[in-house]
Amino acid sequence: MKISRRNLLAAAGVAPLATRLATATAAAPAAGGPRTAVTTLNGRSLPFVVKEGVKEFHLVAGEIEHEFAPGTKIRAWGYNGSTPGPTIEAVEGDRVRILVTNNLPEHTSIHWHGILLPNGMDGVGGLTQPHIEPGETWAYEFTLRQHGTHMYHPHADEVVQLANGMMGLFIVHPRDPSIGAVDRDFAFLLHNWAVHPGTWRPDPSVMTEFDLWTFNSRVFPAIEPLVVRRGQRVRIRVGNLSMHEHPIHLHGYRLDITGGDGGRWPRAAWRTEVTEIVGVGQMRDIEFTADEPGDWALHCHKPHHTMNAMGHGIPNSVGVDTSEVDERLRAMLPGYMSTGRNGMAEHVEHTAMGHMPGPENTLPMMGGEGPFGNLEMGGMFTVVKVRDRLPDGYADPGWYQHPPGTQARRVETPAEDRK
Amino acid sequence: MKISRRNLLAAAGVAPLATRLATATAAAPAAGGPRTAVTTLNGRSLPFVVKEGVKEFHLVAGEIEHEFAPGTKIRAWGYNGSTPGPTIEAVEGDRVRILVTNNLPEHTSIHWHGILLPNGMDGVGGLTQPHIEPGETWAYEFTLRQHGTHMYHPHADEVVQLANGMMGLFIVHPRDPSIGAVDRDFAFLLHNWAVHPGTWRPDPSVMTEFDLWTFNSRVFPAIEPLVVRRGQRVRIRVGNLSMHEHPIHLHGYRLDITGGDGGRWPRAAWRTEVTEIVGVGQMRDIEFTADEPGDWALHCHKPHHTMNAMGHGIPNSVGVDTSEVDERLRAMLPGYMSTGRNGMAEHVEHTAMGHMPGPENTLPMMGGEGPFGNLEMGGMFTVVKVRDRLPDGYADPGWYQHPPGTQARRVETPAEDRK
Amino acid sequence: MKISRRNLLAAAGVAPLATRLATATAAAPAAGGPRTAVTTLNGRSLPFVVKEGVKEFHLVAGEIEHEFAPGTKIRAWGYNGSTPGPTIEAVEGDRVRILVTNNLPEHTSIHWHGILLPNGMDGVGGLTQPHIEPGETWAYEFTLRQHGTHMYHPHADEVVQLANGMMGLFIVHPRDPSIGAVDRDFAFLLHNWAVHPGTWRPDPSVMTEFDLWTFNSRVFPAIEPLVVRRGQRVRIRVGNLSMHEHPIHLHGYRLDITGGDGGRWPRAAWRTEVTEIVGVGQMRDIEFTADEPGDWALHCHKPHHTMNAMGHGIPNSVGVDTSEVDERLRAMLPGYMSTGRNGMAEHVEHTAMGHMPGPENTLPMMGGEGPFGNLEMGGMFTVVKVRDRLPDGYADPGWYQHPPGTQARRVETPAEDRK
Repeated sequence: MKISRRNLLAAAGVAPLATRLATATAAAPAAGGPRTAVTTLNGRSLPFVVKEGVKEFHLVAGEIEHEFAPGTKIRAWGYNGSTPGPTIEAVEGDRVRILVTNNLPEHTSIHWHGILLPNGMDGVGGLTQPHIEPGETWAYEFTLRQHGTHMYHPHADEVVQLANGMMGLFIVHPRDPSIGAVDRDFAFLLHNWAVHPGTWRPDPSVMTEFDLWTFNSRVFPAIEPLVVRRGQRVRIRVGNLSMHEHPIHLHGYRLDITGGDGGRWPRAAWRTEVTEIVGVGQMRDIEFTADEPGDWALHCHKPHHTMNAMGHGIPNSVGVDTSEVDERLRAMLPGYMSTGRNGMAEHVEHTAMGHMPGPENTLPMMGGEGPFGNLEMGGMFTVVKVRDRLPDGYADPGWYQHPPGTQARRVETPAEDRK
Repeated sequence: MKISRRNLLAAAGVAPLATRLATATAAAPAAGGPRTAVTTLNGRSLPFVVKEGVKEFHLVAGEIEHEFAPGTKIRAWGYNGSTPGPTIEAVEGDRVRILVTNNLPEHTSIHWHGILLPNGMDGVGGLTQPHIEPGETWAYEFTLRQHGTHMYHPHADEVVQLANGMMGLFIVHPRDPSIGAVDRDFAFLLHNWAVHPGTWRPDPSVMTEFDLWTFNSRVFPAIEPLVVRRGQRVRIRVGNLSMHEHPIHLHGYRLDITGGDGGRWPRAAWRTEVTEIVGVGQMRDIEFTADEPGDWALHCHKPHHTMNAMGHGIPNSVGVDTSEVDERLRAMLPGYMSTGRNGMAEHVEHTAMGHMPGPENTLPMMGGEGPFGNLEMGGMFTVVKVRDRLPDGYADPGWYQHPPGTQARRVETPAEDRK
Repeated sequence: MKISRRNLLAAAGVAPLATRLATATAAAPAAGGPRTAVTTLNGRSLPFVVKEGVKEFHLVAGEIEHEFAPGTKIRAWGYNGSTPGPTIEAVEGDRVRILVTNNLPEHTSIHWHGILLPNGMDGVGGLTQPHIEPGETWAYEFTLRQHGTHMYHPHADEVVQLANGMMGLFIVHPRDPSIGAVDRDFAFLLHNWAVHPGTWRPDPSVMTEFDLWTFNSRVFPAIEPLVVRRGQRVRIRVGNLSMHEHPIHLHGYRLDITGGDGGRWPRAAWRTEVTEIVGVGQMRDIEFTADEPGDWALHCHKPHHTMNAMGHGIPNSVGVDTSEVDERLRAMLPGYMSTGRNGMAEHVEHTAMGHMPGPENTLPMMGGEGPFGNLEMGGMFTVVKVRDRLPDGYADPGWYQHPPGTQARRVETPAEDRK
């Protein structure tokens, strides 16, 4: 496995991320060599300042406006203006201090999921500390004795605060940069949202049947692609704070499952998979060598999790000519549309093309347009784009151009199979 | 692990399956030695023709009539007249061409789940190719660079097309037949169906609460048993295209989990289990040596998944004498029956014996009759039948005869425990 | 890993548990050395008598009164007066006889989940034996050819009998006590219950959305803590007989996943995790060395599974001033309360403090009081208490006292972050 130089940060640790806020009071401790910074899908890493050898981060919990994709906005709760909050990146051995300001209308706390620390820093409101009241700021401080893929989230009124989007990634790089070295290191969190059609706030009382399924609080087609140069070693770190297991499936590759929030596993314990179940409150490190160019689908394999808001509980009209009934129902229910006589693809086409708008503040059900028509995917779906050349760096290179003779092709239908 | 000769196909690869359609234009390439053909529960493998060294298969997508068990029929969608479609069996190194004709009322595409191939052959409608319109036939062609347990299914209007039954198995045997050699090699796919009482088409808008849970689109008691000779090495390949994880449990054995759609794992990574979670969009290879004779239950361990259609949302009558209320409700709702005062077994007995028929086109809730009475199991349940002798080959040998002294027996109830 | 002497039973096997019922007819066979007895949370192990070298246990199935936590009682079904029934503990190589008396109002059977035995002892009603009719007693007898973490439960009218609480643990210790030796060995079963507000019997027709989520049929704060001395090696055995996967998460430690109902895995196959998915009909052995003192949360990571009864399907009032509406609704619906304008914590405070009682026979939603306020946790939640000193043995030592400087602390909120 060859690690390309271009993708490595030459500076120690992930310090370059901190330049905006860096102070002159103390230099970041050298971390032992170069390592690849984490690419948070649709996100960013949190800057820090170094104060007397301690990396100080600052999270501000508060109400935000959040957009799942153009057309669907909600009032959510998050950190530093976004859901998920910014990714905390640090290095094994670092002493970190994290200030948490609560600008929510109710108390909160913050738990560092999977991090080994003194009990009083564990952030369980009521158990290891008093809750953080609105307007207060609390300081957590501990030394990172491990490396791995972790999260932060509240441990106070958890059903409500998670339902509203409060979560973030916490990545601890190994002190020895040769451990698990990769060229591209992506990370995102899985979540579910009950945003009922025509409403603007997630409903925390929903337990199983959600409306929106997200990677880093975005739905396809608003989720960024994962852009990779051919031959690179790639890691995808996936965490789950929803109410369901999500089987994460990547096309075109066999994946090494190398660890997660329990740390990196010894090589003998790795499994090869094409679909890895990411449990709730669990994280997985998924790695592969990108030796096959193309646009490869990356998605949850539960069919309803790759759709955007869908009418559930409506009558099933597959096989039924509903045109007249639809007409009459629309007189009473503006925007009503049956499932479709021949399946949902016709339905999607209508909504995506704007002939038939859905309820207010509701995305088209499956709206991702691809190079060859509608992908009929929404929600937990994006594309890993593997290219021989990336002249614009890791900017979206557009759709893959298939070499001649490598693509499925239309042929004559045999006479005996014509209906 | 001794592999019996009787069960091995002497010819190269799985060529004998193709005899019906084989042409003289080209001989099947020798595959390196004998290997055990896959037994698709309630199914069959797809014949192929060899054309200039390429194995050519042909799948025809279309609407079909499907029976879950005698008494419950639906209009489903499948391939070549069935759901699941026929199993594709090939050998590592084969060049395959698969023609796909679309006789559905809407467009489709076909994705080869877990197969390593050029991006343009990946079958994601809109992303790697245009959708296959009704009446069209498309050709996919690639060389199998791997061996493993795989699937095919549409990647177009996926919620609807999967809900209607479109899926099939794709097994690639290793070129070296000694790798993972077994005597019996079974395969099936897990699925869920929302066929509301009194309807004839699956409802694609259902997300979590389904009516029927199936192995290869059949419910117990219509699922074939897995017949095995004592001492044989057995593999069960299980894939899941439903909306839930299914914990597959076999009685009487410790199981080696040896791999799946991510390929065969090195021996050090095997786990022993008695229940293996098969994730959605995931496949598992489960192996054991059949050293203990008997009739061993094989089932999903979620209690509601081993039932057939069940009234949900009805009042709970355990502990209540409902006889008079039931009488009155039946005057208004023909076929109504409460849960039962003492549990559901009495309820099952009534429906199974026909005293009290349920709604039209609806199976008895738990209908499998065994050698000692009603098994009170339906849905995802069948029996592995391990016998010392199988005079009729792998035909169902009937129920196991327990040697004297090896069966639970009735004894006197101690006086202090009499109620 | 040092195993403390104080926690080992000096006598052979787990014989001391049997002293109450032991007869003089035969001595328990020496089992090879000392081993740690299992601590069943909120439970106990089942005594046995030794008759001619056979350990004889007796389970009596029947209707019981069960309390989830003070304030919520139901009519359940269990064994020997409790749900779960008592834990069966035995040693590899033992010959065991288990008498099962049925005092339920309907037939039953009993299956020994994961135990290798003759087919006729497998306990599948209708398949391997006739059902056990009310009033009858049946004898199961077999030799334990394995060690591991197992369960017993009915295999008759399973949906109803499991929904009512019929289950128990069956632990087989290795003959060689050095295998997997630990100082503390805890065990519990996961379950879900549909006890609708104001009712007293579980509803077996519920398939996914349950009201109560339990460890050994108790909800927090009525679940016992796991008390451990610092430095001890600890095992937690968790089995799942519910309808959902439960991701079991322990704070503060990396966990070795060492096996389960499929037996103990070779060390190379262990994974380290902080959250382990326990599948339905699956058991997991989770081990760690308790080197970090404190009160560490142990819980299912699905947010709704760490709540007690919660109103689902009610209007979402986060961000809405509902005080006037609530007032009016209470005139019609006594006990009605909206979600809360600022989240659920205010709602919890009202119910927990008794200002606003909920429906009859319904627990406060999240009621566990900790040293620093309300934990806002219910259901599948308890605490692992790791202490340097345990003067009262394994009795609850109270809440952890954090050493100075090891706890999160309030600081000044920076001016720019004040709202």
